[in-house]
Amino acid sequence: MSLYTKATVTDEQRTELHDALSLTGAEISINYLPTGMAVPFAHSHKENEEIYTVIKGRGFLIIDGEQVDLSVGDWVRVSPEAKRQFSASRYSDVRYICIQVKENSLNKYCTDDAIPEK
Amino acid sequence: MSLYTKATVTDEQRTELHDALSLTGAEISINYLPTGMAVPFAHSHKENEEIYTVIKGRGFLIIDGEQVDLSVGDWVRVSPEAKRQFSASRYSDVRYICIQVKENSLNKYCTDDAIPEK
Repeated sequence: MSLYTKATVTDEQRTELHDALSLTGAEISINYLPTGMAVPFAHSHKENEEIYTVIKGRGFLIIDGEQVDLSVGDWVRVSPEAKRQFSASRYSDVRYICIQVKENSLNKYCTDDAIPEK
Repeated sequence: MSLYTKATVTDEQRTELHDALSLTGAEISINYLPTGMAVPFAHSHKENEEIYTVIKGRGFLIIDGEQVDLSVGDWVRVSPEAKRQFSASRYSDVRYICIQVKENSLNKYCTDDAIPEK
């Protein structure tokens, strides 16, 4: 595999990066919802945790019946078993990133996993 | 563990989310570099792939000696063994996200891992 892969995400409604970047440890999608619109179904996961962040506008997640409001700079981790559904605000459209990773898959990170160049 | 965790990232120089969100499958950092500044060392990884995206401004990665320019909407996957060093552009500061995940850890994703609500 190449040492790196690069993709440019435009303002399409939804872009999935797993195949575009040959990701092996995550699926990442960049999503858009017009004002007042929701993903048409709630879902949970078998083994993946999901991490959401808003990069433009405002939206909210309904997580097992609880509304969690999200603006630019907010980040949320959702456990696999939780039922979640993403919506744009009634007053704003929203662009957001969703990152799927396998729960409990990270062994070490940052200085424990990094090798500084000599 | 709670079904969800939430954190709000402000314009601090660097924010790490692993502990703030109780992440178990990723470390995610939000980073800032002033115009013309670089992370002070190159590094590789033992087992984690890294995914970078720019959310404001412009920057570049040097990956094993090759310059990869990055603007808003660009995403890059870097293999663990590659030596990488992130810099802001000479003409712009840069805010970027770095996602660390264990290489080859994702078993399934999207419709293979999701359970639609009945």
